[in-house]
Amino acid sequence: MSIAKNENIKIISLGGQGELGKNMYVVDVDGDLFVLDAGLMFPEEEMLGIDIVIPDITYLKDNKQSIKGIFLSHGHEDHIGALTYILKNIKTTVYGTDLTIELVKAKLREDEFTDKVDFYKIESHTVLQFESAEVSFFKTNHSIPGSVGICLHTSQGSIVYTGDFKFDQAATELYQADIGKMAAIGERGVLCLLSESTGAEKPGYTTSEAVVSREISNVFHGASGRVIVACFASNINHIQHVFNAAYENNRKVAVVGKRLKTVYDIALKLGYLRIHDEILIQASEIEKYHADEVAILVTGGQGEPIAALQKMAKKGHKQINIVKGDTVIIAASPVRGGELTLYKTVDLLFRAGAHVVTNRTVFVPGHGSQEELKMMINLMKPKYFMPIHGEYRMLKAHAKLAVQQGFSNDQICIADKGEVVEIKASKIRPTSKVPAGNTLIDGSGVGDVGNIVLRDRRLLSQDGILIVVVTLHKSDKSIVAGPEIISRGFVYVRESERLMEDSVTIVKEAVQKNSGADFDWSTIKQDIRDSLNSYLYEKTKRRPMILPIIMEV
Amino acid sequence: MSIAKNENIKIISLGGQGELGKNMYVVDVDGDLFVLDAGLMFPEEEMLGIDIVIPDITYLKDNKQSIKGIFLSHGHEDHIGALTYILKNIKTTVYGTDLTIELVKAKLREDEFTDKVDFYKIESHTVLQFESAEVSFFKTNHSIPGSVGICLHTSQGSIVYTGDFKFDQAATELYQADIGKMAAIGERGVLCLLSESTGAEKPGYTTSEAVVSREISNVFHGASGRVIVACFASNINHIQHVFNAAYENNRKVAVVGKRLKTVYDIALKLGYLRIHDEILIQASEIEKYHADEVAILVTGGQGEPIAALQKMAKKGHKQINIVKGDTVIIAASPVRGGELTLYKTVDLLFRAGAHVVTNRTVFVPGHGSQEELKMMINLMKPKYFMPIHGEYRMLKAHAKLAVQQGFSNDQICIADKGEVVEIKASKIRPTSKVPAGNTLIDGSGVGDVGNIVLRDRRLLSQDGILIVVVTLHKSDKSIVAGPEIISRGFVYVRESERLMEDSVTIVKEAVQKNSGADFDWSTIKQDIRDSLNSYLYEKTKRRPMILPIIMEV
Repeated sequence: MSIAKNENIKIISLGGQGELGKNMYVVDVDGDLFVLDAGLMFPEEEMLGIDIVIPDITYLKDNKQSIKGIFLSHGHEDHIGALTYILKNIKTTVYGTDLTIELVKAKLREDEFTDKVDFYKIESHTVLQFESAEVSFFKTNHSIPGSVGICLHTSQGSIVYTGDFKFDQAATELYQADIGKMAAIGERGVLCLLSESTGAEKPGYTTSEAVVSREISNVFHGASGRVIVACFASNINHIQHVFNAAYENNRKVAVVGKRLKTVYDIALKLGYLRIHDEILIQASEIEKYHADEVAILVTGGQGEPIAALQKMAKKGHKQINIVKGDTVIIAASPVRGGELTLYKTVDLLFRAGAHVVTNRTVFVPGHGSQEELKMMINLMKPKYFMPIHGEYRMLKAHAKLAVQQGFSNDQICIADKGEVVEIKASKIRPTSKVPAGNTLIDGSGVGDVGNIVLRDRRLLSQDGILIVVVTLHKSDKSIVAGPEIISRGFVYVRESERLMEDSVTIVKEAVQKNSGADFDWSTIKQDIRDSLNSYLYEKTKRRPMILPIIMEV
Repeated sequence: MSIAKNENIKIISLGGQGELGKNMYVVDVDGDLFVLDAGLMFPEEEMLGIDIVIPDITYLKDNKQSIKGIFLSHGHEDHIGALTYILKNIKTTVYGTDLTIELVKAKLREDEFTDKVDFYKIESHTVLQFESAEVSFFKTNHSIPGSVGICLHTSQGSIVYTGDFKFDQAATELYQADIGKMAAIGERGVLCLLSESTGAEKPGYTTSEAVVSREISNVFHGASGRVIVACFASNINHIQHVFNAAYENNRKVAVVGKRLKTVYDIALKLGYLRIHDEILIQASEIEKYHADEVAILVTGGQGEPIAALQKMAKKGHKQINIVKGDTVIIAASPVRGGELTLYKTVDLLFRAGAHVVTNRTVFVPGHGSQEELKMMINLMKPKYFMPIHGEYRMLKAHAKLAVQQGFSNDQICIADKGEVVEIKASKIRPTSKVPAGNTLIDGSGVGDVGNIVLRDRRLLSQDGILIVVVTLHKSDKSIVAGPEIISRGFVYVRESERLMEDSVTIVKEAVQKNSGADFDWSTIKQDIRDSLNSYLYEKTKRRPMILPIIMEV
């Protein structure tokens, strides 16, 4: 072993603890920083108008010179989605398997990021030597190929980061986990296991993809009309099932959805998606075939496949409309908070005359359930255990599993974002904190939408806004123009003339009351706000945002 | 039989078809209108700022003189919540059981509705004779006592409206369905059954309330600290379980939540809630008891119990804070779209050190599953069948059950809101339409928030607003004050000075360009909007609402 004797090992999460998404972990080995994943999260519903959320990377910016690289476990958005923003601030090498790297490159192109980035393609047997530690990988089973776990070997033992995984014993070779290698890492000695917790509340094993594959094929077999399948572009394994089912049932496949194209082209080029060329047709060619000779694959990220189905059901899609006799397979779990949209979509599809298949056998998650999480613990036999990737109750459930496996509470650490976890004197615990939180991205603005802007959006969304403009004479403060009152999102003005007229009178009175010798800008504005607010609340029981604008000439 | 020979029977839904909530049906027997229920619906997420949604009652207003009464099945908001608004427009008798009527009265008081209303308290054996039809009732099993189905007997047979129901064979007497009477109605001859569809997608039977009661008692028994139970105030059966469990386990109960008080006082007074007085304590008395001698019941409508738990977990509740060792039972299903809030609450409770019980055995719905729906069909043996109360896919699933029971498609009608369904020449089908839709209520405004206001709220919530004020000289249209630019919900202005300065310049240029001889208000406003819009989009990739206000002096 060429690595030095390591004294200080610290583990920090910049995202992924207490939340689903924006996974990002930093392992500090004697001052060398190894960054594991760089994911985004989709906004929660109260984050109005926000496009995506990424980790606060202040800590990384402050310690740029110590970063040895960003190591990616796989190519999903919640593991790579923050890279564009991070690479704008930090120049470092990005390590990942070929599919992961190609997906990152496509993402950077999409985000119009043109700086040169130093990529390093690894394979699962790659070993990287750094001064403080040795980095190796192990193949994992997830819904996208090229998924790996990351192992940082130090003189005190390994720090193992699983990324997302399950153990599907019926997985095809491309997706199979390298259990032997995991066991070998365990044998060599694991100091701390960081294992994902998404499925920690689910008993048993996650249903095999083989079941999904068979079920989709069965639906294809039984359908007398067209088959339309909605799934996420990132779920390459599902896309494979759809093509297999189409091939087995002699159906051509038309692909709809712009986001698929990138993922799909890359996966196809690299051999991670295996399809028979002759079954692919263009959406424009569908009419040439009988209904029972055609399948349509609708994909995209997040809510896109469902949104596309809605359009099709409402006959508003530019390529495909649902017709009576179509069979629609929704092979995608609703995104967080998207349950209502999914229900509404199913309703619309039913109304359009489609047969809809949404049962759980046409979709399984890419995450292991309790028995699989235990298996990872058993293979790695770590000295210490940190549940990662998950809301607090999932981390808690995962810790409980470890206790069932014989771990003591001293060996387990449920860390919060930003906590610096140290392993010292046979204990694992947080010893300090670094900045960690949400950086909100709205349009091209990174982090410029904070609490004030969000609070205003929230207020505006509830009762709208009322703008009062009045022009005063510079010297005697008499009204020379206005008051003009404009509202948006408050009431329908044409039906509220009286309300608007009264408001004008109230503003006039407030101005005249204040136009004396002790004229004061803030007093007059506050008076306008107060008197309008109480009048409008009395009349409408609403509280629009009131914005007085006073000009002087 | 004293009723006349009926020629024309029509059934119209004003709400409840293709949606969950605002249940309201009209049966027209030879021109006499019998209104069945008058419910509200809570707003969908895109209805920004809306408080509640009620049916469009144009049809009833246009036919006031023909209305024979409003007949209520039970006292839940989705069956009585629109009454205040309807009674403001229509004077008619309101029929219901004592609990239902008392709950309506409490609601009217809450809504400050003081007009005299003609109430008629019925019991399940009441029979009301009208010229065109006879109205009777049958006791049903639901989560609130005093629930009845409604039977309109005509010379062609009965029109039966079930309201909400299940068949819990272990229900206490108070909640037991009168199966014998249903069978008798069926024997007498049912022309059309209108049966609720909420549980039509769920196989088997809904779990018995007895299981819930036992499970809650078990949790009480096993808890070493305080037990805190969250449930809906309207679910009187669950409230009963909590009091029973407390009594069995020697715990005092403190009740938290203002809305409970009304329902609870009424149910208690009428004998629908049976509790031992001595176990009730005030929230302020909790400290006097050991943790294992106390239970806390947290209730309210809609999201209130969950919101209260959140406050308690964050130590922000004015009466109770969660402490380590508390056991929290969430005996309430998440409201529509409230799944994320529920997850977040569970996370906060865990973090506060509580043990959380959310499994399905502490809460069951008040609606029957497939086998119970079939039982209703079997008891009523109707000639025609209309699935009601439910989203389209539920109605569809319910119709499928009827087909399995031997109905032909000609005997089944899945009607949309507003469709006038007629039974004629051995066919049931919609023959015309009346107005039906959503009336949105925001504050005291009924129906004044329409699509334009909602669209503005949506726009404002996404990227905020930018207001441009400029005062021009009346004659030469030169700028005498401004441009002043104010934004809300767009960017944090202190960090965007440059953006604001550039915007001022752009507005100045747009004004100057237009201040020539062919000065035109709309052109200048459009120019300001267009040039600012493209500048801001380029710089921020956001599209705030832009509102130019031009004053003249």
